[in-house]
Amino acid sequence: MRAAFMYEAGDLRVLDAPDPVIEQPTDAVVRILRSCVCGTDLHPYHSMTTDEAPRAMGHEFIGVVEELGSEVSGFRRGDLVVSPFFFADNTCEYCRAGLHTACPNGGWYSADGVNGAQAEAARVPQAQGTLVRLPADADDALLSSLLTLADVYGTGYHAAKQAGVRPGDAVTVIGDGAVGLLAVLSARQLGAERIILMGRHKDRTDIGRLFGATDVVPERGEEGIATVRELTGGHGTRAVLEAVGHLPAYEMAVGAVRAGGVISRVGVPQYEQAPIGFDSLFGANVTLTGGPAPVRAYIDALLPGVLDGTVDPGRVFDRALSLEETPEGYRAMDRREALKVMITL
Amino acid sequence: MRAAFMYEAGDLRVLDAPDPVIEQPTDAVVRILRSCVCGTDLHPYHSMTTDEAPRAMGHEFIGVVEELGSEVSGFRRGDLVVSPFFFADNTCEYCRAGLHTACPNGGWYSADGVNGAQAEAARVPQAQGTLVRLPADADDALLSSLLTLADVYGTGYHAAKQAGVRPGDAVTVIGDGAVGLLAVLSARQLGAERIILMGRHKDRTDIGRLFGATDVVPERGEEGIATVRELTGGHGTRAVLEAVGHLPAYEMAVGAVRAGGVISRVGVPQYEQAPIGFDSLFGANVTLTGGPAPVRAYIDALLPGVLDGTVDPGRVFDRALSLEETPEGYRAMDRREALKVMITL
Repeated sequence: MRAAFMYEAGDLRVLDAPDPVIEQPTDAVVRILRSCVCGTDLHPYHSMTTDEAPRAMGHEFIGVVEELGSEVSGFRRGDLVVSPFFFADNTCEYCRAGLHTACPNGGWYSADGVNGAQAEAARVPQAQGTLVRLPADADDALLSSLLTLADVYGTGYHAAKQAGVRPGDAVTVIGDGAVGLLAVLSARQLGAERIILMGRHKDRTDIGRLFGATDVVPERGEEGIATVRELTGGHGTRAVLEAVGHLPAYEMAVGAVRAGGVISRVGVPQYEQAPIGFDSLFGANVTLTGGPAPVRAYIDALLPGVLDGTVDPGRVFDRALSLEETPEGYRAMDRREALKVMITL
Repeated sequence: MRAAFMYEAGDLRVLDAPDPVIEQPTDAVVRILRSCVCGTDLHPYHSMTTDEAPRAMGHEFIGVVEELGSEVSGFRRGDLVVSPFFFADNTCEYCRAGLHTACPNGGWYSADGVNGAQAEAARVPQAQGTLVRLPADADDALLSSLLTLADVYGTGYHAAKQAGVRPGDAVTVIGDGAVGLLAVLSARQLGAERIILMGRHKDRTDIGRLFGATDVVPERGEEGIATVRELTGGHGTRAVLEAVGHLPAYEMAVGAVRAGGVISRVGVPQYEQAPIGFDSLFGANVTLTGGPAPVRAYIDALLPGVLDGTVDPGRVFDRALSLEETPEGYRAMDRREALKVMITL
């Protein structure tokens, strides 16, 4: 098959690779119909060294079941399925508690012995627990929204759920990437009344407004914090959803959150140390939460709204390319010419 | 009156000071019956420089109302009262939400223009919101337990409440000081089944066992983390209550918490930067919460158990001294010869 590999920063190649096969009786092989490029894929695109090359890329896909291991039940060849970005058994105590990303039998695509999803096919470990069947007659127009269930929609939803967003709430969302915009959508679904979106790309924040943002703050840093505080009578908002992952975004979150409020992070932190002492979190009794989203836990709740058209999370895809054009997809996202690139196979 | 002042690290003096008077119509003056020395008082005792001298000390007391400002109602001269360590109006939106330590009209004893509580009397700002009347016939034996409502009991309770401790829960408490021991008591009251107390002073951890600790771990650092993990099937506990405030205690909390769990801090952080990235909090979806306890919010819930003898939080006091002997109280606590020193007036 053909598959995308990173060789070093800025150097993504689509090459021939071995076709995935069933390795464990709990595996499935899925022929991929739609994949995409994630904001987190840009981190190695910026900084990867040749020591780690080649690295298989991609972790979001929907596709058709092609082969099933002997221990996988509940699926048939030809089923249309979505896979969360993290595979998991869906039976252990962490999965039962809704924390699939802590599953001891779980793991990441493009790592943990599994190929990437920017490819023609994928081996899916723990397939019975990982995959979710989609209505076989899902038409083409729905595929982009269904694809967001693999990561970005569930990740935005995780930010809002972990922050305990509730009816009437005031929420700040930091970041106008796909996850930030879907955090806006999720906060709205959970009943937030005031949603302040911090982002400076008008084409993106316009989607944020469609998703439910009531205010847009393009300023950053101290100026951005001051604007959020002005909009909220000096208090900040009870919840701040941080969908970027860089330290300045965390610092904005600390500045924008109300005393007693919650900062919920889903942007993968590109830092380890950060301020959490008396003057940042402790003195104001601010809670910090979040992490890699247990997307599998949310699909059952989010799927109906996608299928019946209540929500249209697929709006975050503003460009569709072929697998061979994947390098162009990275370039376009890196230059902020594209919000999120879908790969159509 | 006589009152205690810190002059520099290690130099505490009891001196003559002006008697407090009503300055605002919302003030009261309270004649102090019992005060005490707090673990946080030891921080300036270790590091204060002469630049900041003299600093009034103490923030926990029960006493008798002596004078009332014209706008204070609901109290009479002679009422036995307890004061939280942070005064607050109890009417603003933060107080109504139970976050008195964020009250815009609130403040700290020994700061914010108010004298300390290691003294014969105190001016109490926002007296109507701050003070809580105690049964006038509270006998002497109860006074030590009632005194814990001013800070350490409410602070330990805040740790457990913020961590969402619930029936059947598994909890680690870091620190065998008064707050740590009362965090054990609080976790037990909220129904925790397994309570692992990390502390290495047997006389203290013995009190912890009386309060409900099921396991005691004297080891610290990596060894302590390994022991907690061993005791919990490798997982750690869902909640970790951190009642120390030094960075190594935070690091133990990160090591001892279960994926998806909560670290609740009430030890005042003696650091600002700490690890919160993928390898500490984020990757395992660990929540960090806590802060200065809104003690006032908990007194109504905790008082009945103290009055009817269900709990005996006053056990944390293992030495009683006169106000003039306060310097000896600091020395004894600093040398770990005393757990918590009560000042009897």
